[in-house]
Amino acid sequence: MRYNAGMKEPDAPRHMTSEELRRHGHEVVDWIADYLATLEQRPVRSQVAPGEVRAALPSSPPRRGEPFAAVLDDLDATIVPGLTHWQHPSFFAYFPANSSGPSILGELLSAGLGVQGMLWETSPAATELETLVLDWLAELLDLPATFRSDGAGGGVIQDSASSATLCALLAARHRVTGGAATSAGVDRPLTVYASTQVHSSLEKAVRIAGHGTASLRLVDVDDEHALRPDALAEAIGADLADGATPCLVVATVGSTSSLAVDPVAEIAEVAHAAGAWLHVDAAMLGCAAVAPELRWVGEGLEHADSYCTNPHKWLLTNFDCDAFYVADRAPLVEALSVLPAYLRSAASEQGGAIDYRDWQIPLGRRFRALKLWMVLRWYGAEGLAAYVRGHVAHAAWFAEQVRAHPAFEVVAPVRANLVCFRHVDGDERNAGLAERLNDSGELYLTTTRLDGRLVLRLGVGATQTERRHVEAAWAAITAAESEESGR
Amino acid sequence: MRYNAGMKEPDAPRHMTSEELRRHGHEVVDWIADYLATLEQRPVRSQVAPGEVRAALPSSPPRRGEPFAAVLDDLDATIVPGLTHWQHPSFFAYFPANSSGPSILGELLSAGLGVQGMLWETSPAATELETLVLDWLAELLDLPATFRSDGAGGGVIQDSASSATLCALLAARHRVTGGAATSAGVDRPLTVYASTQVHSSLEKAVRIAGHGTASLRLVDVDDEHALRPDALAEAIGADLADGATPCLVVATVGSTSSLAVDPVAEIAEVAHAAGAWLHVDAAMLGCAAVAPELRWVGEGLEHADSYCTNPHKWLLTNFDCDAFYVADRAPLVEALSVLPAYLRSAASEQGGAIDYRDWQIPLGRRFRALKLWMVLRWYGAEGLAAYVRGHVAHAAWFAEQVRAHPAFEVVAPVRANLVCFRHVDGDERNAGLAERLNDSGELYLTTTRLDGRLVLRLGVGATQTERRHVEAAWAAITAAESEESGR
Repeated sequence: MRYNAGMKEPDAPRHMTSEELRRHGHEVVDWIADYLATLEQRPVRSQVAPGEVRAALPSSPPRRGEPFAAVLDDLDATIVPGLTHWQHPSFFAYFPANSSGPSILGELLSAGLGVQGMLWETSPAATELETLVLDWLAELLDLPATFRSDGAGGGVIQDSASSATLCALLAARHRVTGGAATSAGVDRPLTVYASTQVHSSLEKAVRIAGHGTASLRLVDVDDEHALRPDALAEAIGADLADGATPCLVVATVGSTSSLAVDPVAEIAEVAHAAGAWLHVDAAMLGCAAVAPELRWVGEGLEHADSYCTNPHKWLLTNFDCDAFYVADRAPLVEALSVLPAYLRSAASEQGGAIDYRDWQIPLGRRFRALKLWMVLRWYGAEGLAAYVRGHVAHAAWFAEQVRAHPAFEVVAPVRANLVCFRHVDGDERNAGLAERLNDSGELYLTTTRLDGRLVLRLGVGATQTERRHVEAAWAAITAAESEESGR
Repeated sequence: MRYNAGMKEPDAPRHMTSEELRRHGHEVVDWIADYLATLEQRPVRSQVAPGEVRAALPSSPPRRGEPFAAVLDDLDATIVPGLTHWQHPSFFAYFPANSSGPSILGELLSAGLGVQGMLWETSPAATELETLVLDWLAELLDLPATFRSDGAGGGVIQDSASSATLCALLAARHRVTGGAATSAGVDRPLTVYASTQVHSSLEKAVRIAGHGTASLRLVDVDDEHALRPDALAEAIGADLADGATPCLVVATVGSTSSLAVDPVAEIAEVAHAAGAWLHVDAAMLGCAAVAPELRWVGEGLEHADSYCTNPHKWLLTNFDCDAFYVADRAPLVEALSVLPAYLRSAASEQGGAIDYRDWQIPLGRRFRALKLWMVLRWYGAEGLAAYVRGHVAHAAWFAEQVRAHPAFEVVAPVRANLVCFRHVDGDERNAGLAERLNDSGELYLTTTRLDGRLVLRLGVGATQTERRHVEAAWAAITAAESEESGR
C-alpha cells in the first residue's frame, strides 16, 4: 500500500485527552496514596505460585482500546496480590529500594516531560540539573573535591551499582592499556581484585567486558569480613610476576552480606602502587554520610578513582538512581565515546557541554536528576540525616534484643542498618525460620552465608519503617522460635 | 556515636503525608496535562547556552526541607526553558521518543509501587506481566513463534536498543565459544559484522565487550543503503581464512540515518553458514508492524537469533522500553547469570520462574511492563495501527512536497515515517538551513551524512503530530529557503 497526496488521511487513534489525563491521573495518584497508606495490611512477600498471575490475565492483547478503569481493576485483583511489597514497613530483605512522595512525583514529571538527555543539546536542563544535583549530593555526603564537576572529575546517574562497576572497569581498562583495549581489543591478561564479599555484579562485569571469571581475584577477608590489604598485595604481586596487568581493584563500603567495610586508604596504596584503578562500591552504605556522625563511611575516598552509592537504596529516591563519580572523567568518556554524524552537535564540539551518553552503557537516558533534586529539596540535609539516623537506631535496638536472647547470636558487627544474626542451632534451623517467617507475610527477610554458615539478615531501610515495625519483627521471630522449640 | 536501647529515638524526618501526596500529586498531574496541552507555544529546541540553567539554581543543597511549591516554581522558571521538547508536535529530529497518557500513568504506578523485579521471587507479578506483555507485543507485531515465551525463547524489556545489542553480542559470544569466553575470557579473535549504516551502539558494544573497534567489520551497502549480502559473505570469508571466528552479524531494519532495511533472510543464510548469531536491530521500524500493511518490516525474522524494537520510539510508551527477544534464552542467561548466596530463591532453583536479572546488564529493574501493558490496553491493536499509519501518511505527504520543489530532493527511499532530503545547493546550504530552522524554535530536525553528503532528516513520530504540523514544517522550510535565496 502506498500513500500519496490524494489519499484521505487515515483515522486518528483515540489518544487520552487532556481532561482524561487529569481525571485518570488523579485516580492513580489517589490509588498510590491509598496503596502506601494501607501497606501494613498486606503480606510483605507475595504468596502466589509461579504462573498464577499470568494465568489470570488474557493471553492476547485487545483489538480495541479498553477503558482505563479496566486496567485499575486488574491491578487490584491480579497484579497487587502478585507483588512483593518493597515499600512495606516490614520489608527487611536484601537491601532496601526506598521511595518517597517527592521522588514518585519527580519520576512522574520525568515521564510527563518525556525528554531524552543523551546529549547536552537534546535537553540542556536535564544534563545541567544532573551535574548540579550530583555536586549537591557530593556536598551532602562530604565527598572529596576530586569528584566535583568543577575539576577533572564529576558525577552521573547510572541505573544501578552494577552498571557503575562495569563503567569503572571500562575506564580502568582504557587507562591501563593507554586506550589500546578500546580500539584493538584486549590482548594481554588484565586482572581484577576485590574481597570474597564483593557484590556479584563485579563477576558479571568482568564477564561482560570479556575478561572472564578467571581474571577475577577474590581476596581473603579479616574477622569482620573486610578485605585484607596484605592479601591483596600478595595476589597482585603474584599476577605481576606472571606477566598480568592489574587493572581494577574494587573496595566495598558496606558488603551485601554483612555491610562489611574495606579499608579504602590502605587498599588505595596497594592498588596505585601496581598502577590499578580503585573503585569504591558504597552502593548501600555511602548514603549514610548524610548523617555527620556516620561520615566514617567516606574515609579514604580521596584516594579513589571512582565511587558509587545508591540513593535508590537508602536516600528516599525510587529505583533507578545510582550516583557514580569519577576523579578523572577522561578515561571514562574516551572508553565509551563513539560519535557518528547523526549525533554531532555544535555545543558538544565546542567543549562547553557534557554529553552523558559517554558516561554510561546505553545511549538514551531519562531525566532522572529530577527525582533526586525533588528529594533533596523536600527533605533538606537535616531531614535526610534524621531519616538515616532513625534506621540506624532501629537496627541497633534490634541487635540488642538478639544479643540478649539465649537462642540467637549476632554474627557480624552492626555498623549501620543491617543486623546479621542466627539461631544457634545451625543452618537448617535458620533456613526453616526464614521460610516460616516469610511465608507468614508478617515480615520479609533474606539469608546469606557468612563464614560458611547460613545467617539471617534484617536490614532496616524502608521509608515507612518505624520502631514498632522492628519490634513486631522481633516479636514474630521469637514467637516462631518458641513455637518451633515447643516452648 | 553508638546507639543503645536506653537512648531516645532520633527525631523522625518530615515525610510527605498521604494528604500532601494527593494534593501535590494532583498538582503535578495537572501541570503535566497543561504542559502537554501547551507544547505548541514553546520553541521546540531549547534556546539556552551551556551553563545557563545551572547558573540559575543554588549551588548548594538546602539545609532544611523546602515546600513543594518552590520546586514547581523553579521547574517553570528554569528547567522548562532549558528543555528541548521531545513531545512537541513539531519535533522531527533524531528518532522520536514518544509517550502517551496511559504510559505516563503506568510509569507513575511503577514508581508508586516501588518494586524491584530482579528475581521472580522479588515480585512475581512484575516478572509474569513482563513475559505476558512481550508475548502480546510479539502477537501484535506478528513476530515468529520462536520469540514467544512458550518455547525456548522469549522477550524482556531492556532500557534501550544499545543494551539489547550488547546482550545479543554476549549471548552470541557465549554460544560461539561454547561458554569459554564467560569463564576464561576471550582468547581468539571474534569478529562482528553489520552494514556501514548500523547504529553506533554496535561499536560501543564491541568496545565494552572487550573486542575493540578493530573486530568490527562495516560492510558495504547498496544504492538504498541496505547491507549487501555478497559483501558480507566476502568479509566473513576473509576472516575465516585469517583464523577469526565470526561471532555476530547485526541486520538493521530501519537504519538511523535513512531507515534503510537490510535483507534479513539473505543475511541469515550467510551468518548461519559461518556459525554466527544473527541479531536484528529494528529499534525504530519494528513497531510499524502493528499496521498489517507494514508487516514487511518483519520479513525474515524467523531466521534471527535475536531481535529488538523500541516501543519508546514509536509505540506511545515513554523511554525506557526496548523489547528484546531471543529465539533461545539459554546462551543469554548462561552468559549473564552469576548466583551468590544472597540471591538464591526456591522458585528459581525449582526452575518454574524467570529471573530477568539474567537477561540484562544490571541486576535491579523497575516494573516497566506496567506502562507497556497500559498502552496496549488503552489503544488496542486497532488504535496502535491507526497511530503508526497516520505518521507514515504524513511523511508520505511531506516527501511529495519535497519532490515537487525545484530546490529540494528526496535522497533515500521513504518507507515509513522518515524523509531524508536536501537542498540541491550542497552541504553548506543544508547545514545553514538546519541551523536557521532549529534556531527559530518552530521545528526541530537533525542532519546526517548519506553517500558523503549532508542531508536533512524529518522524522514524523511524536504523539501529538498531526498533518498541520508537517504542513507548517514544510512552510517554514520553504520560507527559509526563499529568504536565503533572496526570492
